[in-house]
Amino acid sequence: MRVLKGIVAAVVIVSACASVSFAQPARTPLPSWNDTASTKAIVAFVERVTKSGSRDFVPVAERIATFDNDGTLWAEQPMYVQAAFALDRVKALAPHHPEWKDTEPFASLLKGDLKGAFAGGEPAIAQIVMQTHAGMTTDEFNAIVTDWIATARHPKTGRLYTEMVYQPMLELLAYLRANGFKTFIVSGGGIEFMRPWAERVYGIPPEQVIGSSIKTTFDLREGKPVLVRLPEVNFVDDKAGKPVGINAHIGRRPIAAFGNSDGDLQMLQWTAAGSGARFCLYVHHTDADREWAYDRQSHVGSLDKGLDEAAARGWTVVDMKADWKAVFPFEVKRDPRERNLR
Amino acid sequence: MRVLKGIVAAVVIVSACASVSFAQPARTPLPSWNDTASTKAIVAFVERVTKSGSRDFVPVAERIATFDNDGTLWAEQPMYVQAAFALDRVKALAPHHPEWKDTEPFASLLKGDLKGAFAGGEPAIAQIVMQTHAGMTTDEFNAIVTDWIATARHPKTGRLYTEMVYQPMLELLAYLRANGFKTFIVSGGGIEFMRPWAERVYGIPPEQVIGSSIKTTFDLREGKPVLVRLPEVNFVDDKAGKPVGINAHIGRRPIAAFGNSDGDLQMLQWTAAGSGARFCLYVHHTDADREWAYDRQSHVGSLDKGLDEAAARGWTVVDMKADWKAVFPFEVKRDPRERNLR
Repeated sequence: MRVLKGIVAAVVIVSACASVSFAQPARTPLPSWNDTASTKAIVAFVERVTKSGSRDFVPVAERIATFDNDGTLWAEQPMYVQAAFALDRVKALAPHHPEWKDTEPFASLLKGDLKGAFAGGEPAIAQIVMQTHAGMTTDEFNAIVTDWIATARHPKTGRLYTEMVYQPMLELLAYLRANGFKTFIVSGGGIEFMRPWAERVYGIPPEQVIGSSIKTTFDLREGKPVLVRLPEVNFVDDKAGKPVGINAHIGRRPIAAFGNSDGDLQMLQWTAAGSGARFCLYVHHTDADREWAYDRQSHVGSLDKGLDEAAARGWTVVDMKADWKAVFPFEVKRDPRERNLR
Repeated sequence: MRVLKGIVAAVVIVSACASVSFAQPARTPLPSWNDTASTKAIVAFVERVTKSGSRDFVPVAERIATFDNDGTLWAEQPMYVQAAFALDRVKALAPHHPEWKDTEPFASLLKGDLKGAFAGGEPAIAQIVMQTHAGMTTDEFNAIVTDWIATARHPKTGRLYTEMVYQPMLELLAYLRANGFKTFIVSGGGIEFMRPWAERVYGIPPEQVIGSSIKTTFDLREGKPVLVRLPEVNFVDDKAGKPVGINAHIGRRPIAAFGNSDGDLQMLQWTAAGSGARFCLYVHHTDADREWAYDRQSHVGSLDKGLDEAAARGWTVVDMKADWKAVFPFEVKRDPRERNLR
C-alpha cells in the first residue's frame, strides 16, 4: 500500500482536462456523448423499442438493461477498487493478527510488496478475500464498506472512488430509466461490496445489483437474528457465470447489455441471442490521457475475444477517446438545469 | 395420480359458497377483508409508514414486502402445486423411461401409489424433482411450466391452480403496491416454477420472485447460448434459508412479511428485527368449509412454533374464517369498477 500511497503523492491530479463545456442544448439526454456512430446507435435502439406501434416495440416490464461495473461504470485501473478495499482492510485488521507478520500473503502485503503477496496466486487471493470479507454479519460488513467508500481515494487521481465513475454512463443509465428500462449491475465484483453505495452513485437499488458472493448463514445471537458471512464462495458472477446470475436474479433475458471486458462476453452473447431487438455495447478503453488505454494484453479488464466478437456481430464499441466528451463527472462544468441527471 | 383424479370426480365443486356480494363502497382497498382487528392492523401499518411527516415514515425505496407463496398466496392442500406438477411430469415422461416401471420411486408413483413412492423419503423426492426439473434448458422448462399451469386443475375444486389464489391477498398485494411497496415472493417452492405465471397472476415480475433452485450452467449449443438445468441443488429457500435468500436477492430488509407456516418463521423474525416500523402477519388456515383448516399437526404447511411466536410478539394472525369475506376470486361477484384490482 505504501507503493500506492507514494504514487498518490507523486501524481499530478488530472484536473488539467476539467471544465469541459457543452454547445448542445440542456435537454440532450446524453450531453457527454459526442454525436458519433456509437451515440446514434444507442438512441436509435431506444427509440425502436419504446415507440408504440413499432415492430420492435418492447413492453416496459421487459426493458431490462444489464451493466458490468468495473471498467464499464467506473475505473478499474490501476487495480480493482475492491482489491484496494481488501488491502486497506488487511492493514486495518493487522493489529488483531500478529501472526500475519510471518504468514504469506499477509507478510508481503503489509510490507507493501504486492508482487510478493500475489505470488501465491488464487489461493493467496482467496485468503485475503476471506480474511477481509467474511466472519462478520451482513450489517457489519455493510457498515465497513460504507465507511471505507466514504473516504477512500484513488491512488492516481486522489479522487474518491465514487467520483471515478463515468459521466457518459451515468447519463446512459438515466436515459434508459427515463425510457422505462430497469437497470441492473451484473458484476464479477462482490454483490455486498457494491450495494451500500450503488443506489446513491448509480441510482441502482440493492435488489438490482448482481455480483459474486460468499455464503451466509442465519443465526440468532442473544435472540437477535443475524446473517453471518462465511469464508466460503457461493457464486462467481463472471464470464459464463454472468448469464447464470442474470437468470437467477432477474429471470428474464436483458434486451441490452453493456460491458468492457472478456468477462462480459457471455452476458452479451446471452443478451444478443434473445428474439426481437437487442443491443450489445462494449466500452473500449482508448483514452490514455483522460483515463487509461488498454485492451487485449491487460491483466485487468482484458478485452480480446470480445473485441473480435463485437466486430463480427456488429455490436457497438465505444471509443472512449472519440465518443466521450468527458469521462468523469469532475471534468464537467455542470449546467444547474442538469443537476438531477442521475 | 389416479387417486387424485378419482378425488376430482367424486368431489362436489365448492361453488355453493360462490357469489359473495359486498356492502362496502367500491373504493375500499381491501373489499374481501372483514372490518376486523387484522384488517385494521394492516391499514394502520400502511398509513403509519406512508404518511409524510410521520415518525414511522419509510421512503418508497425501502418499502419492501415479502410474501410466502404456498398457503399464503394460493392453496397448498391437499398437496403443494409443484408436487402435482412433478407427478404429472413423471407420467408425461414415463414413455421415455421404460425402466421406471421397475424402479422406485417411479414404479409406485406410476401405479398411483403415492405412499409407496414417498416411502423412500427425501432421496425419493430428490429423484423425482431432478428427473422432472433438470436436464432441459431454462427456456424449455419455462415452456413446460407455462403449458402445464394453463390447463392443470386442482384435484378437489376442479379449478385451474391459478384460480386457487386468495382474493384477499391479491387485494393486499395491490393495496401495498398502490402505497409504494415493492412486493416480492419468498417461497420454498422452485423459483423457475413460479416465475412463468407470477406476473400474470400476482402482478409480481420474475425479478421479484425468490425461491429454491437447482444449479444451471451456460453452454453454447451450435453457437446458440443456453442455460442448462443441472440435477444439483443450488439453494433451498425455506426456514433459515429465507432470510439468506432475501439478502441475496433484495439486499435490503423487508419492512413487512407475510407467511403461513413455520417455514416462514425466520423470514418474519428477520423482518421484525429491523429498526423502525415493521409488520409481520401469519395467515392461519381456519376455514374448513371454504378452504382447509390446519395448523400445528399438518404435514403440509405446519404452523406450530410460528403460532406461539406470533402470540408472544403480537404479530397479526389472520383468521381466514373470520377475517376473509371471500377466499377465492371465483367466489366473488365482481363489481365491474373493481376489475383492475390486481
